[in-house]
Amino acid sequence: MGLFQDKRVVYKPVKDVNLGPHSTEFYFHDNVKAPRMTGIVVKIFTLLLETRVFRTSILYLLKRNNLFHKLITNADLEDSPLYVPLHHFEDHREQEVKCIDHALTPQEQVQLSIDCLPTSSSEDDDALNGKNSSFCRWTIMDYSRAYSSGDITPRMVAERFIAAVAESSKAQLQMGFFINYNTEDILRQADESTLRYQRGEPISVLDGVLVAIKDEIDCLPYPTTGGTKWLHKERPCADDACCVGRLRLCGAILSGKTNMQELGAGTNGINPHYGATRNPYDSNKIAGGSSSGSAAVVSAGLCPVALGVDGAGSVRIPAALCGVVGLKPTFGRVPHSGVLPLNWTVGMVGILAGTVEDALITYAAISGEIPSNQPSKIPINLPLLPMTKSISDIKLAKYGTWFNDCSDDIRRCCSHALNKLQDLYGWETVDVTIPDIEVMFRAHYLTIGSECSTSLDSFREKNFAELGWDTRVALNFYSAFSSMEYIKAQKIRNRQLQFHKKILAEADVIVSPTTGVTANPIQEDAIKTGDFDYPNAAALVRYSISGNFLGLPAVTIPVGYSELGLPIGLQFIGKPWAEATLIHLAFAMQAICMPEYRKPAVFYDLLRENES
Amino acid sequence: MGLFQDKRVVYKPVKDVNLGPHSTEFYFHDNVKAPRMTGIVVKIFTLLLETRVFRTSILYLLKRNNLFHKLITNADLEDSPLYVPLHHFEDHREQEVKCIDHALTPQEQVQLSIDCLPTSSSEDDDALNGKNSSFCRWTIMDYSRAYSSGDITPRMVAERFIAAVAESSKAQLQMGFFINYNTEDILRQADESTLRYQRGEPISVLDGVLVAIKDEIDCLPYPTTGGTKWLHKERPCADDACCVGRLRLCGAILSGKTNMQELGAGTNGINPHYGATRNPYDSNKIAGGSSSGSAAVVSAGLCPVALGVDGAGSVRIPAALCGVVGLKPTFGRVPHSGVLPLNWTVGMVGILAGTVEDALITYAAISGEIPSNQPSKIPINLPLLPMTKSISDIKLAKYGTWFNDCSDDIRRCCSHALNKLQDLYGWETVDVTIPDIEVMFRAHYLTIGSECSTSLDSFREKNFAELGWDTRVALNFYSAFSSMEYIKAQKIRNRQLQFHKKILAEADVIVSPTTGVTANPIQEDAIKTGDFDYPNAAALVRYSISGNFLGLPAVTIPVGYSELGLPIGLQFIGKPWAEATLIHLAFAMQAICMPEYRKPAVFYDLLRENES
Repeated sequence: MGLFQDKRVVYKPVKDVNLGPHSTEFYFHDNVKAPRMTGIVVKIFTLLLETRVFRTSILYLLKRNNLFHKLITNADLEDSPLYVPLHHFEDHREQEVKCIDHALTPQEQVQLSIDCLPTSSSEDDDALNGKNSSFCRWTIMDYSRAYSSGDITPRMVAERFIAAVAESSKAQLQMGFFINYNTEDILRQADESTLRYQRGEPISVLDGVLVAIKDEIDCLPYPTTGGTKWLHKERPCADDACCVGRLRLCGAILSGKTNMQELGAGTNGINPHYGATRNPYDSNKIAGGSSSGSAAVVSAGLCPVALGVDGAGSVRIPAALCGVVGLKPTFGRVPHSGVLPLNWTVGMVGILAGTVEDALITYAAISGEIPSNQPSKIPINLPLLPMTKSISDIKLAKYGTWFNDCSDDIRRCCSHALNKLQDLYGWETVDVTIPDIEVMFRAHYLTIGSECSTSLDSFREKNFAELGWDTRVALNFYSAFSSMEYIKAQKIRNRQLQFHKKILAEADVIVSPTTGVTANPIQEDAIKTGDFDYPNAAALVRYSISGNFLGLPAVTIPVGYSELGLPIGLQFIGKPWAEATLIHLAFAMQAICMPEYRKPAVFYDLLRENES
Repeated sequence: MGLFQDKRVVYKPVKDVNLGPHSTEFYFHDNVKAPRMTGIVVKIFTLLLETRVFRTSILYLLKRNNLFHKLITNADLEDSPLYVPLHHFEDHREQEVKCIDHALTPQEQVQLSIDCLPTSSSEDDDALNGKNSSFCRWTIMDYSRAYSSGDITPRMVAERFIAAVAESSKAQLQMGFFINYNTEDILRQADESTLRYQRGEPISVLDGVLVAIKDEIDCLPYPTTGGTKWLHKERPCADDACCVGRLRLCGAILSGKTNMQELGAGTNGINPHYGATRNPYDSNKIAGGSSSGSAAVVSAGLCPVALGVDGAGSVRIPAALCGVVGLKPTFGRVPHSGVLPLNWTVGMVGILAGTVEDALITYAAISGEIPSNQPSKIPINLPLLPMTKSISDIKLAKYGTWFNDCSDDIRRCCSHALNKLQDLYGWETVDVTIPDIEVMFRAHYLTIGSECSTSLDSFREKNFAELGWDTRVALNFYSAFSSMEYIKAQKIRNRQLQFHKKILAEADVIVSPTTGVTANPIQEDAIKTGDFDYPNAAALVRYSISGNFLGLPAVTIPVGYSELGLPIGLQFIGKPWAEATLIHLAFAMQAICMPEYRKPAVFYDLLRENES
């Protein structure tokens, strides 16, 4: 943070800020101020917030107490605003990378990604494929091989899937995985796929593989509720989203619409209308959000992959809490047509997968600009594997104070995993300082809030009363900002991008935990009104923001468990368009951690059931 | 405008809007509501506006009465926001165009532009060069030839210039051309240029040519006041702006900082601190603004060209009112480093010139991205001349109702010029409808206002009391908007860009008058408080907005005079990056109109004085 002058925060020019380990920029242990509220108190607070008389004063106090006024509204910034974090593709040095020409179909891209998977001839094979581990989820390739062998059919898997989802929904479990799934539609897709395998003509390795879709993404024949009770009535779903259409082209079975935080406006995955999504590792704990259902169904073995949308860590946070891989690509990597336009400059379709391998295949399937007459501007990067120790010059940047601002379990576990990675590959870690993370957090909140508020404005009068209490509070706060505050937030975006670019010029990735805390308990009083535990929410999103606000790609990999047995994720944040480097690293980290992976308490083994 | 539903304006999807001549979209004769105010009333109004108690209510009423609430705040729009009108360069069909590789120096680019000038061997020569006309201003080439011949030196011209400016500033004229000019610095530059010509080594045709710079653009050794009494103290000028540096590299004599509307926040060119810039054609009339001084010095013959900045017609409006050429290039064509960052997404450095020829040479000198290691993405287009009748397939789009929404003089004069152009070249005009122009006007106002308010926020408490009364009112209104309104304005920007792109896919340019009215009188009571004549201001900017809000290039050419002898301009608006087409057309139009050009009442003939 800058100097104080005339009571205004004056941010130093970027060139004068030291980003090295001995910087005088101090780390701000963020103290988000909001009392935890439940029941009737929540309702009274919400109703007051919606009155003309109290609204202005309450919003003023919320903004002031949470330092929006000090850090943004009254701050002096030299930087120009950056409105959209869309990066030019520069031909940066990514090691061992294959670039795909965009003229390819999704099926062809998937095929190329298969060629990039670790081969079984490698000496690291066992570690890479985790066959020594006590637990691993079935992968896309496992399904594909099983279908091709004829031992099992997509129809059989679909039937088991339907039975499993039914069981998970029963009163004693109430896992809250799906908002909608249509057994008839699933079985029809499975039958078509089964026929293709019988004819020996599967479309791709994704043929017959179950993929679940967050209910923020259009997918026929389902309505797109966005976690609400009404949005699908106002905005009918007319077609598959582009990313869903690409998966369908590859033969994937679209298995239904997963539960999510209402309108994506939170990170705990508790939905007052469709139930709280429960964590497969401990069903008394949250799954994280907002892509809660997508993370939980992958964790529970129901699908090898699912799609989510990540506007403030909404893919990575639930992935970490549910012990699966979460990949948020570079802003602009996946077309957003057919995704609810809740925001425009921070969100990105992301992938939740049981393994890095499956994240890579799905990334290949859904990535790429919408074909046009113009030559494509941004090639898709795939990592050329096998990963070997010979790749010796990957550099990781670590901001120690920030890295350590998490629970003891997470700090210990992430540091341990990182140390093992460095020891095994000899990769260097450089200590850095990332200034003003708490400012970026608020600038991003202001941005996503303003965009969300705008996108939903048409429905304010008619539909907002149908929203959950927590969402109503969020949307009221979202609309509290001026155009000047919005533009200043974009100046902070530019400033932060310059910091991150400087750091990523010296290192390949920034490494951090994925969340500051593990999955917290689902409080009974929160299921109906939502959980107003903002300090916990702030700890959940602590490491997510640069991925969204600056459009950088990021991946989270499970690296261990807390003392209570809850999953812990480690995050790598990469250079723009450098997903290949992230996937490289994720493979390496997975190979190290997979032997320790544990089976969730709620788990459905859709392939092995048949063998047993 | 769209349907009314639940009292909200619902804008139709772009694809459903008919842009043809028989569209049902109606033209809204805009009725900007604000009483004309003077003297003590202005001061009381401003002070009330700055009180906590009345501020909110006054701003609410201003926004409501001027239809911001109806057309933007409460409107439903499907379009995504477009924050920055930076266009991809697509290799569109521009006829007879030379594309310049960016590796060239400004001098080399100028040389190439010379090769594009009409040659004297052409049969259209007389018309093109206007030698038959009763009046024409000296051009850059005239100066260059005179210097090269040795008949006259840059030193002599500089001395005459200094004498002329001194005379124009005297009590009986008070033309208000310059905010700052330094005789010593001008003579030093002139002496250096004189030496170069004596050695037979002029740098370029711009060597020794006087160029004036709007006081919004950094130019050593001057402070950059932005038309205020204080901004230069808070933001010292440390270097030439990029565009100024390029002119200096070409040998141009930078002749001082021209007067402007304070902070560019208006279009009449009346500055309470540095005086009203007076129109050389009638010194009781305004010069237009905000680049008032730059237009007036070119009109009065003091410099063949001057630089301005065009954020809402600020180059084109004064150019039209002062009877000179005004070129606003595509957004991003000229680097903005060293230009006051009053806004980021609508402003562009522009050129005011006595002839199209000089606009072209100056455009070549200042255009192009800042050199970097990256290959340039956007080539500079130059029109290959001579212009011949054989170029037969230029298509002009005309929105008749809009075209005709101007004073009788302007309508008659612009229609006449356009008819002659069509007759001579056989070019086709297609009738179109541009929907929601009044909405774009407000969305642009909201945008430039929010950006300007943000850029000046640091100075609010300390310096705003030193501003003129009209600027204070403007800046108060500028800060009245929410982040949602700002984002909705960007949605309107995207919507309008789609309309314009569709129209510009069917035609090469859109043709319109440049202003709705000619120069209005300078009211004595307005000189100190500014002129609060918003309806007149709205008529001045009526045709300017798409150039700024959508980043399209535009050019204005003098085509005649009102009954009172005041200049009238015609505007061509082009496709992104298609300045060459605009210059083509401007040459053709100039050739037609030049024989009728009249000499301003205030005019300094810096070359001929010597001959007489």
